[in-house]
Amino acid sequence: MKRNTYLTLLAPEEARKLWFARLQAASRALPEENIPLTTALHRVLSRPVAALRSSPAFHGAAMDGIAVNAEDTFSASVRNPLRLELGRQAHWINTGHPLPPGCNAVIMVEHINTEGSGETRWAVIEKAAFPWQHVRKMGEDMVATEIILPPGTCLGPYDLGALAAGGVLQVPVFARPRVTIIPSGSEIVPLALAREEDLRAGRVLPEFNSLIFSAMITEAGGESATLPVVPDQPEVIAAAITGALDADADMVLINAGSSAGSHDYTAHVLESLGEVVAHGISVMPGKPTVLAVVRGKPVIGVPGYPVSAGVAMEEFVLPLLALWQKRPAPEREKATAVPCHALPSRPGMEERLRVKLGRVDGNIIAVPLPRGAGTITSLSRADGIVRVSRDSEGCDAGMAVTVDLLRPRNALDGALLAIGSHDNTLDLLDSLLRKTHPRFRLTSAHVGSLGGLMALGRRQCHLAGCHLLDAETGLYNRRAIENNLDEPMILLRLVDREQGIVVAPGNPLGITGISDLTREGTRFVNRQRGSGTRVLLDYKLACLGVAPASISGYRDEEYTHMNVAAAVLSGRADAGLAVRAAANALGLPFVPVGVEEYDLVIPRRFYESAAMQALLDVVRGPEFLQAVTEMGGYGTKKTGQVIWEYNGK
Amino acid sequence: MKRNTYLTLLAPEEARKLWFARLQAASRALPEENIPLTTALHRVLSRPVAALRSSPAFHGAAMDGIAVNAEDTFSASVRNPLRLELGRQAHWINTGHPLPPGCNAVIMVEHINTEGSGETRWAVIEKAAFPWQHVRKMGEDMVATEIILPPGTCLGPYDLGALAAGGVLQVPVFARPRVTIIPSGSEIVPLALAREEDLRAGRVLPEFNSLIFSAMITEAGGESATLPVVPDQPEVIAAAITGALDADADMVLINAGSSAGSHDYTAHVLESLGEVVAHGISVMPGKPTVLAVVRGKPVIGVPGYPVSAGVAMEEFVLPLLALWQKRPAPEREKATAVPCHALPSRPGMEERLRVKLGRVDGNIIAVPLPRGAGTITSLSRADGIVRVSRDSEGCDAGMAVTVDLLRPRNALDGALLAIGSHDNTLDLLDSLLRKTHPRFRLTSAHVGSLGGLMALGRRQCHLAGCHLLDAETGLYNRRAIENNLDEPMILLRLVDREQGIVVAPGNPLGITGISDLTREGTRFVNRQRGSGTRVLLDYKLACLGVAPASISGYRDEEYTHMNVAAAVLSGRADAGLAVRAAANALGLPFVPVGVEEYDLVIPRRFYESAAMQALLDVVRGPEFLQAVTEMGGYGTKKTGQVIWEYNGK
Repeated sequence: MKRNTYLTLLAPEEARKLWFARLQAASRALPEENIPLTTALHRVLSRPVAALRSSPAFHGAAMDGIAVNAEDTFSASVRNPLRLELGRQAHWINTGHPLPPGCNAVIMVEHINTEGSGETRWAVIEKAAFPWQHVRKMGEDMVATEIILPPGTCLGPYDLGALAAGGVLQVPVFARPRVTIIPSGSEIVPLALAREEDLRAGRVLPEFNSLIFSAMITEAGGESATLPVVPDQPEVIAAAITGALDADADMVLINAGSSAGSHDYTAHVLESLGEVVAHGISVMPGKPTVLAVVRGKPVIGVPGYPVSAGVAMEEFVLPLLALWQKRPAPEREKATAVPCHALPSRPGMEERLRVKLGRVDGNIIAVPLPRGAGTITSLSRADGIVRVSRDSEGCDAGMAVTVDLLRPRNALDGALLAIGSHDNTLDLLDSLLRKTHPRFRLTSAHVGSLGGLMALGRRQCHLAGCHLLDAETGLYNRRAIENNLDEPMILLRLVDREQGIVVAPGNPLGITGISDLTREGTRFVNRQRGSGTRVLLDYKLACLGVAPASISGYRDEEYTHMNVAAAVLSGRADAGLAVRAAANALGLPFVPVGVEEYDLVIPRRFYESAAMQALLDVVRGPEFLQAVTEMGGYGTKKTGQVIWEYNGK
Repeated sequence: MKRNTYLTLLAPEEARKLWFARLQAASRALPEENIPLTTALHRVLSRPVAALRSSPAFHGAAMDGIAVNAEDTFSASVRNPLRLELGRQAHWINTGHPLPPGCNAVIMVEHINTEGSGETRWAVIEKAAFPWQHVRKMGEDMVATEIILPPGTCLGPYDLGALAAGGVLQVPVFARPRVTIIPSGSEIVPLALAREEDLRAGRVLPEFNSLIFSAMITEAGGESATLPVVPDQPEVIAAAITGALDADADMVLINAGSSAGSHDYTAHVLESLGEVVAHGISVMPGKPTVLAVVRGKPVIGVPGYPVSAGVAMEEFVLPLLALWQKRPAPEREKATAVPCHALPSRPGMEERLRVKLGRVDGNIIAVPLPRGAGTITSLSRADGIVRVSRDSEGCDAGMAVTVDLLRPRNALDGALLAIGSHDNTLDLLDSLLRKTHPRFRLTSAHVGSLGGLMALGRRQCHLAGCHLLDAETGLYNRRAIENNLDEPMILLRLVDREQGIVVAPGNPLGITGISDLTREGTRFVNRQRGSGTRVLLDYKLACLGVAPASISGYRDEEYTHMNVAAAVLSGRADAGLAVRAAANALGLPFVPVGVEEYDLVIPRRFYESAAMQALLDVVRGPEFLQAVTEMGGYGTKKTGQVIWEYNGK
């Protein structure tokens, strides 16, 4: 079998430098165009723009009152009020209007009395005016010929105003760089052609990377065109690339085929068409990137996995679009964060970890999201990116790291960070909280009940979802809190949950309870250690005197109820323990095992905070109760009640 | 004369609270609409969106290689390589493709040898596969029915990708709130109707606030419509407002007439139509704002001066648009800065000062821009806003203040801050620097030559433009540096400048030199104390034995050459001292007085920095020399040369 390999494995900044240098030598400047000012929001000036008129274009009144010649008023005082004839020595004037000839000052209406009637009237003043008082002088804001804005300015609302004030109605801007996107792969279907019923049934694999790319290109000031999906055939890919270059694209993206697999033709095709500057970048995700130059233009093989593709876009495509438009390279705001646990990483490769963030006791805590390059939700859910440098083996717990923020820094302040057990009602809570209190949100990370208590103990979160059964007392959560936490806590009931065995459609193995899980040929899927569901299983097994090792699949672990249900739906397992809501969601049969108490553990010091009180409002509100009831499998009798107060040690 | 007054004078946050409360009671929810995902970039989700499909929708290969059943491989080892029949026990598979039935693991192509030929071929492995190795499990990214994104999410590129991955092709979003803008004022001309030649000649006053507003509304996710300008007539204004409400606007802005002048009808019109919640806000600029509710809808009288209008938009309009869309209120990133001099402010009114910012020695230095509410360039040029609270009399020099940043924080790092004398070539330098080195920019603040040296002494800037003549030695700048600065400095020639007297078109007073300025009836306009031009004037007057007091207008001060020339062009003065370039720019006659040395004073500790070296590249480059020469009135013989090195004290 033919074997491909990566041609290079360069660090991202090194690859970018080489590629830019190679492009610079061959590149032409981006064309300019003159466009109407009214359509120029967020366009980028290609040259400095000078004022065509002064602003104001005349000396104008800065207050309502009378316009006068200051010298005429010098004798005025409280003892000797001065009369100025209206229409001759004094002229009523409104803010913004030009001074009449011979006038150089305005006296505010509040400081004037009037006398006389009919033809002749006077303004009476008790104080002299000094020259140019309450006058906006010509050119106060700008003088004709002065530069209003430098090139490279991305025009915001106030910039448009300043240009208009300077009489500039047409502006020179860089033409939007044109990027052609070529999706490839025999297995994918363009989003525009995918029908919802086929998607629901899992019959088609939607091509969505091009949607991400075109949105990124739009944000970067470019214009994109997406071609129909091309099959995995070198000659067809080559033809698509040369066709795009002929049609005057400034840049071409091929997605994907950029890896080193047997059907990955991108690098070879690009070698045959031009020069491959880099194939393989030492960054995870993002490694299978190809940077090439064809006919002096950049052509990029973008990896297929969406997270890798995002890295390639951010490292190579967006900086080039910025460079062409003479804008500073896009950079994310940075913050210092503390990972909630150690983050091991492979040396030799820079790693980009997507994290959720919360500000707890003044520290920003980073909770890593799934690392897989295929998990687009790790990007849509992320608050930040931690870069683990390639000469490091990762980050130790508690060691401060730098995070690139994906949301405005102040958005962190309104976030309640929940670390602990997973339940779908947490997503529901977040949605309702945002709806009723847009300032706040609930960010949750799923590490199991015990992991949540540990995080509370390390002061790394604001609350934890918890359902830990104590085998001795039969009580939920109290013993675990006493054993693991020192500071005062409030234990608040979120929901009662029905736990049970999720089985395949029709329950073909006829599973009726825990004891059936040991049957020959029954493949179980378990939850991870430290999860309340795992504790419940072990408790039930102990009650029945069943050895865990006798269950096939006991060591096959998933991290959420939904993933357990999905494992059963897909046929990967025959049974798994999960909440009824997860079975309902996927339409799977459910064999009840018991009702458990799913509580929120809240440090007393956070209990009165505005964000927490907003959350409790939602927990206790009718909308939450109704939505939870509709999900099925939940009891809400004690929802929102304080079950127990722990006074700490 | 009828006198208007402000009805209230509420603090912005108090006014907003009252107004929002009043609106909330009467408001309907923003309508929702379902739109295609492909058009949803930057739209805001109106409800949580759940996955319609799991992603992946099947168990798929995460690597190229062979798909196997892991149990079949358990006996493989280096000593006992295992043969798996291709097509029966092992199946070639590419990344992303679904596993064949019965398979639960993938072995990477790199770890496989092949044997056999023709019909029967084998894959030979030397290591067992564990179950689910190199497999992307169904639902790894998301499971059907899980919430992908909560309501209030403003959809970015990765969000679109996550929704598409979940099979969501239509998304529920808030309808864009519709805002109708009504410009008013008998003196203004809509931008669309203003002809460039009329603008250049100063014959028309362009209406540009509506352009700023509509851009801000677009950025905030709204839609705006601007009506034709209505005259200052109460009944016409009232008809325009009710017409807009009838046409289903969600909000109406009237600009301006919101002040308390005799032609300011907005508040009274709104009182007659509905309820005025606030008229007059205790913030400068921004005071003349009217907040009203008409037929349950918000109607706002926005002040006429653009900076005041901007404050009203940011304080009242944008937060309401955010609230409607359930988004967190827009907030600017904050930084701590040190003002370069004291910033006095009137107690009782909060003041919003626009500032330029530069990072010098790790401190962010804030240099205030002109305070006038009419100077739109104070917004387009600003890097930040300092809020001086209403219970304060301002900020002392050196006292740290909080700044709202108008540009990304990292943009500050590339900025060289110049404080000192003004020259048009500094704007030119900035434009060329941005063009050739997009990472860097030159931010300049104009306080005169001596002010610049003082700022250098306080370590508040990276360089200073300076042209200070020493009367004793006849040398420029050296004595002033020795007298005012302790640390080592490089004195670098920027340009030689021709200084002279700018006079009115045709030089009607026949001015031929400095001595003519004392003539009866000649009105002079001076530069501020501490400016090099003022020093030059005083030197020339001393040489001639002329008393400054004998010059009419000696105490009438401007801060820039261009403003001096503008004062002459407008007829406010007959003569002023400025550089030839300023006279040329406005087409005014120029009577030469002498050539002076305009230098850059650069602390030695900044001289080698990348930004400074980039600037010097530009100073010494052909493009700068050519552009300066074309401006006229400049000599470039020594441009870019180090004139003198000062070793400090």
